[in-house]
Amino acid sequence: MPIPPKTLHFLKKLKAKAEPSAIAARLTPRAGAPAPLMTLPKPSAAAINRIWARMTKAGVPETARVELADERTLSEAETYAGNIENMIGTVKVPVGVVGPLRVNGVFAHDDYFVPLATTEAALVASYARGAKAVGRSGGVSVATLGEGVLRTPAFRFASIAEAGLFVNWVVSSAEALISAAEATTSHGKLLSIDPVIDGEIVFLMCRYETGDAAGQNMVTFATEALCAHALDQSPVQPRSWFLEANFSGDKKASFLGTMLGRGRRVTAQVDMPREVVETTLGASIDEILEYGRIANLGALMTGQVGAQAHFANGLAALYLATGQDVACVAESAVGFTRMERSATGLLVTVTLPNLILGTVGGGTGLPSQAAGLDVLGLKGTGHAPALAEVAAALCLCGELSLTAAVAGGQFGSAHKRLARGSKT
Amino acid sequence: MPIPPKTLHFLKKLKAKAEPSAIAARLTPRAGAPAPLMTLPKPSAAAINRIWARMTKAGVPETARVELADERTLSEAETYAGNIENMIGTVKVPVGVVGPLRVNGVFAHDDYFVPLATTEAALVASYARGAKAVGRSGGVSVATLGEGVLRTPAFRFASIAEAGLFVNWVVSSAEALISAAEATTSHGKLLSIDPVIDGEIVFLMCRYETGDAAGQNMVTFATEALCAHALDQSPVQPRSWFLEANFSGDKKASFLGTMLGRGRRVTAQVDMPREVVETTLGASIDEILEYGRIANLGALMTGQVGAQAHFANGLAALYLATGQDVACVAESAVGFTRMERSATGLLVTVTLPNLILGTVGGGTGLPSQAAGLDVLGLKGTGHAPALAEVAAALCLCGELSLTAAVAGGQFGSAHKRLARGSKT
Amino acid sequence: MPIPPKTLHFLKKLKAKAEPSAIAARLTPRAGAPAPLMTLPKPSAAAINRIWARMTKAGVPETARVELADERTLSEAETYAGNIENMIGTVKVPVGVVGPLRVNGVFAHDDYFVPLATTEAALVASYARGAKAVGRSGGVSVATLGEGVLRTPAFRFASIAEAGLFVNWVVSSAEALISAAEATTSHGKLLSIDPVIDGEIVFLMCRYETGDAAGQNMVTFATEALCAHALDQSPVQPRSWFLEANFSGDKKASFLGTMLGRGRRVTAQVDMPREVVETTLGASIDEILEYGRIANLGALMTGQVGAQAHFANGLAALYLATGQDVACVAESAVGFTRMERSATGLLVTVTLPNLILGTVGGGTGLPSQAAGLDVLGLKGTGHAPALAEVAAALCLCGELSLTAAVAGGQFGSAHKRLARGSKT
Amino acid sequence: MPIPPKTLHFLKKLKAKAEPSAIAARLTPRAGAPAPLMTLPKPSAAAINRIWARMTKAGVPETARVELADERTLSEAETYAGNIENMIGTVKVPVGVVGPLRVNGVFAHDDYFVPLATTEAALVASYARGAKAVGRSGGVSVATLGEGVLRTPAFRFASIAEAGLFVNWVVSSAEALISAAEATTSHGKLLSIDPVIDGEIVFLMCRYETGDAAGQNMVTFATEALCAHALDQSPVQPRSWFLEANFSGDKKASFLGTMLGRGRRVTAQVDMPREVVETTLGASIDEILEYGRIANLGALMTGQVGAQAHFANGLAALYLATGQDVACVAESAVGFTRMERSATGLLVTVTLPNLILGTVGGGTGLPSQAAGLDVLGLKGTGHAPALAEVAAALCLCGELSLTAAVAGGQFGSAHKRLARGSKT
Repeated sequence: MPIPPKTLHFLKKLKAKAEPSAIAARLTPRAGAPAPLMTLPKPSAAAINRIWARMTKAGVPETARVELADERTLSEAETYAGNIENMIGTVKVPVGVVGPLRVNGVFAHDDYFVPLATTEAALVASYARGAKAVGRSGGVSVATLGEGVLRTPAFRFASIAEAGLFVNWVVSSAEALISAAEATTSHGKLLSIDPVIDGEIVFLMCRYETGDAAGQNMVTFATEALCAHALDQSPVQPRSWFLEANFSGDKKASFLGTMLGRGRRVTAQVDMPREVVETTLGASIDEILEYGRIANLGALMTGQVGAQAHFANGLAALYLATGQDVACVAESAVGFTRMERSATGLLVTVTLPNLILGTVGGGTGLPSQAAGLDVLGLKGTGHAPALAEVAAALCLCGELSLTAAVAGGQFGSAHKRLARGSKT
Repeated sequence: MPIPPKTLHFLKKLKAKAEPSAIAARLTPRAGAPAPLMTLPKPSAAAINRIWARMTKAGVPETARVELADERTLSEAETYAGNIENMIGTVKVPVGVVGPLRVNGVFAHDDYFVPLATTEAALVASYARGAKAVGRSGGVSVATLGEGVLRTPAFRFASIAEAGLFVNWVVSSAEALISAAEATTSHGKLLSIDPVIDGEIVFLMCRYETGDAAGQNMVTFATEALCAHALDQSPVQPRSWFLEANFSGDKKASFLGTMLGRGRRVTAQVDMPREVVETTLGASIDEILEYGRIANLGALMTGQVGAQAHFANGLAALYLATGQDVACVAESAVGFTRMERSATGLLVTVTLPNLILGTVGGGTGLPSQAAGLDVLGLKGTGHAPALAEVAAALCLCGELSLTAAVAGGQFGSAHKRLARGSKT
Repeated sequence: MPIPPKTLHFLKKLKAKAEPSAIAARLTPRAGAPAPLMTLPKPSAAAINRIWARMTKAGVPETARVELADERTLSEAETYAGNIENMIGTVKVPVGVVGPLRVNGVFAHDDYFVPLATTEAALVASYARGAKAVGRSGGVSVATLGEGVLRTPAFRFASIAEAGLFVNWVVSSAEALISAAEATTSHGKLLSIDPVIDGEIVFLMCRYETGDAAGQNMVTFATEALCAHALDQSPVQPRSWFLEANFSGDKKASFLGTMLGRGRRVTAQVDMPREVVETTLGASIDEILEYGRIANLGALMTGQVGAQAHFANGLAALYLATGQDVACVAESAVGFTRMERSATGLLVTVTLPNLILGTVGGGTGLPSQAAGLDVLGLKGTGHAPALAEVAAALCLCGELSLTAAVAGGQFGSAHKRLARGSKT
Repeated sequence: MPIPPKTLHFLKKLKAKAEPSAIAARLTPRAGAPAPLMTLPKPSAAAINRIWARMTKAGVPETARVELADERTLSEAETYAGNIENMIGTVKVPVGVVGPLRVNGVFAHDDYFVPLATTEAALVASYARGAKAVGRSGGVSVATLGEGVLRTPAFRFASIAEAGLFVNWVVSSAEALISAAEATTSHGKLLSIDPVIDGEIVFLMCRYETGDAAGQNMVTFATEALCAHALDQSPVQPRSWFLEANFSGDKKASFLGTMLGRGRRVTAQVDMPREVVETTLGASIDEILEYGRIANLGALMTGQVGAQAHFANGLAALYLATGQDVACVAESAVGFTRMERSATGLLVTVTLPNLILGTVGGGTGLPSQAAGLDVLGLKGTGHAPALAEVAAALCLCGELSLTAAVAGGQFGSAHKRLARGSKT
């Protein structure tokens, strides 16, 4: 049969449900949608209750309300102002802890308890195993290699010629553009402006240092001011312009971010004695290297951005436990893992080029999220560089543990043991 | 100066901190790491307190304990068994709601209140605005196009010739391999086996239907059985083999997933009247299309996987509110957004090829997460296909709202208004 | 300075040439272009002379005419009918030969003299060195793993629902569609039809076997007939449709081609004794493996499609010498090279997933190109599968030789020795 | 059946050929390969005849010799010294001409006859059609946006710390490193050094201006000297180092090249009146834009590097006719094509970020290749920038013509008309 099996199977399943024409009919727009909720920007017990009244009427069960809009959440509702709209409660995500994780970094140089929020069995146990092996090897060496959040406006001109004249003006006006941008922020610095032309369109890649904040809003406001200055002063005027041209890698995996770095670029390494590998990780160096070679080929053959095993697991859990923007996992969880034989035993290296995170701003000041930073000892001003290095060290632990589990044949069994009942 | 500005800047900053040799010295491994925490797989108040005792001694402040290990969390600790190890409490993430979102889907056909857990200002408001515009347009048409979670073991043989003989055996033994795999699961089905050879290595791309579960564990256990059968029966034996060859796109953006689909592949569309675009979204169709063209070029020039604005924001918030594995955002938040002029006004289409989600298993049964599914009316068996369609409809709302905000020049101001104070 | 050095430098250079406004003015359209040449589809001495008359008048020197439109070319001009329009002569590309290259393949099983047309010093010598090392190792094992040229039409419908109904019709009409396609060709077979939906658009990935021809035209004509049948018979009609949707990977590097294969997918391998590596290639196995690890990281960090050293060099030269479509190098020169330690010494593997080539059709029948196939012993019907295997074996030789050159520190010196004078 | 149709089909075909075990046996290494040809670096009639004597003995037919080693080739054999080894003759590739192509560029500002060497029917005719349409629109506006060939050595140190110290030394020694590099060349300039760290490995992206040469050898020799200086002077010494780390995008499609540019980056544009589109190209603007949207989606869905139709066709033909390194098509034939509606009619833009080409060195001085440059009026010193702009203008013509052909439904028929007989 010349049709792929998955297509045949899915069509059969759909047809078992209804006639094709009936299915098609279900997709037709229907007028008369119910009135949308008013957007309530300020959370409060009253506002929460108002929304629940509407949802209850629509049939959402009372049990849901009890779990989301519990007493404590209602009493602290105002705390969440500036972090959420249309608030109806809180979701409680269990937090496990890993460590102490010994980090020998430029900015992070301590033994850290690392809080991880997740609902996935075996995740914390796996990272803990990696951290244990790392501790027995003297800790993880980590270095930040650069930083800089991008925001990239675009300007469309009448012609290539005008685009060129604009770039010429930008280059000669760089200092003034920087002043305009930096006037909007007390912590941000505009490090560089890189103009990229495609025909009559000019992109300006603006790279900022954002202090201890993740900085996504900071770079937006600063770039808005930069654009305003350019529009005010440039001798050539664009036909249209946009504050962000989908050119920064914001919240998505891209080769630009992976190559040039967005957020902090951090590299981490451990040189692990053979005995630690074998006893703590339960696989031989030969097995791990054999798996490493095949996993690298897998990454290449499937067109991954970078090549690594599961940065996303550790990062998502750390981001969640410390009030980061979890959506940034889409861009931060890319990078490179290498495993090689060394004189000592096994040399493991990870590099994460796009760590978007902070210790001030965003969700970092919320009660339980600030507590997460407190577990690390990294709450507030001055700690973002260390948090980035801890994140990279953590990812290294995860790569080590998962790789050893697959290499040593424990991958299936570990999940079976730690997951809740036989759920498959 | 022939060195890039960002490099010069960062080096200067490092040197301001310490001498290069002193920085280098900080990276040296240090023996004598503190004993790691024992891994405690079963959460309970006692276990939580035991870990806190250790952390408190190490200096973690009592305030952190109060926020994470609150009364309610301690009393419900056992509930989290099978979802976390080394539990120390819960992080409380505020949940906002969007809707009712009118969805005209094959599986989802209703008006949905959609819970979104996030700490990022403006996110809920933005999706709410999109949902409102969609409601005024008759809702979102959505269709699931396919499904199938991948697990891909690898087998290394002595030679290309043996690899070929193994593939020949696999093809002739497909039915027996499927039986072996399916014996491990009551809900999973193995839809297809696609052998890929590179030299002496054979990858078997196994695609499963996983019922209402996200299915990552299910496909692991089933593939483990399939491999056991192959190792037992195949006339040619591999020199090494691995249950997963980093070839499935699991927890990372890859072109394989984007092309072939991992999890559910869903497409969603709305044909929005001009008047709705202008009044609800605050931008003209011309402005939106102009931005769309530039944003598409941005996606291409920066090497995105797919081309879209911010699927990650909506997906991460929905996943978190409904007990999904948030790390899967790394793979699920890829896809395609198109905006085109239509006779009605603006035709907007999104396609998400990799939706990994479920309504049973994982974190979906936890108290507040199950409540999130209850808000949607999609808790438990039979609802995963609808949840996937709601997710795609939600992403469409977000694409619409963000695109209109950038196109209409409201992007910076909306964030300024809704974020907490002047934090930059 | 916040502007990248390369940008500053280039702007300075431009300004040294002229004022920015003067440069901008040069880009303005100018009316009154000279009349274009008439397109002359049939080459002949008379037609060639006619074009030269026009060019000579426009100032093209007589010396150019002598070199391109030499006696022999003029006398054989008609031979080139169906391969060129507006013919003005021939360019003479020097051909070197490599071998005999011992190939132990499924289809190619012999010792081959391999003709390579190139103007780049050291290329032939480098491949020759690889072939020599391979010969001393018993030859290259090669296997074709699959074949199938893609052509992918697209159909846009009024809605997702109609797109779905069309796919349903296509699946149920597959046999008739295949008959329609295959009626246009005596050698082509339509192997599979894979429908891909994005919103209201349907792509049909049609995969063909093309016999001994490269097949680009064959699949175009067959798919045109398939589309005509669909348009004639389908109960739902598209609003627009296109014979090729830029969805086949035709003449460009793509992850689709690299993953799914376009043209022939071939893998080749040699297990080379340590002594051969060291004496023939001039580098130790340790050096080669060390370089291999770094080169692999380089491929990943720079976002290559696949990971290899220079397939393009060997393929372009072979394609040119045997009348292939050299533009296909853009898609064929992707793939994977692996180097690993083995019991014997060094195991080297290459896989090329997209070999577009043939031994009939295109330029393969032209006098000197057919001679190139004759050197290989692979002219005409029945030889395309062997040619593909020879191509892969050749690429392996090149990977081996270049890798050893870089690893052993001979890379610069080899080029210095063989290039023409000191030209830099 | 759970196995993909293409796999089933291919296995069946193989089995029709022989038993699996017999096929497997064919791949076994065989000792006793015939002695390889001695490598003859200096072409001459005698050397050519010597190789033919060997090949003739091995059964290569005399007819092949006559075509490749013709009188003229034998008499001019020495001309090819420094461009080929083991020379056995020349392959004659037919050259067609397109134009005059009106180019309004920064460096190219004239009406050009453009020679294209190809064996593919319809290629020259298609580009000629595009050139005609362009001429009727006032010509193509073109601008070079930057230049710079990369060479990227790698250095592996004992640790991250040492890697950092090396980068610190490189930055402080940049001027001396540049002097060392530039001492090797009279025309090359080292524009920038961009250090990239991954763990203990340092890559130095060295970007050179290469004057009128393509420059691949120039940058190799210069970087060799730079490395020698670094090894001599650096206070930290690498454990291993390599002159090129597969990090430059040399001869392959990569996102690095597409983003940062390798070779010359050129953009070209035409704003074509509606009437010209319709009468010269035979498709309406609506049809072309409709196709453009779908082709763009095709590029994204299949993971192209960039998004364009067939740069490779025009570039390969121009490179071949002018003595460029045709293998560079693998890297040069990437980029971006945009088609949009304008006040005039249709705005078409192409950008090619990686044009590797020259007017001196390589094959540009060979008799018929120099003649190709003479047809353009761009032979020798001072003309490389113009050649790059002509190349981009040419690619624009091809994009226009092919897109219109597919959009207007002439794609299949044009190939049928111009190809040689019914060859499918």
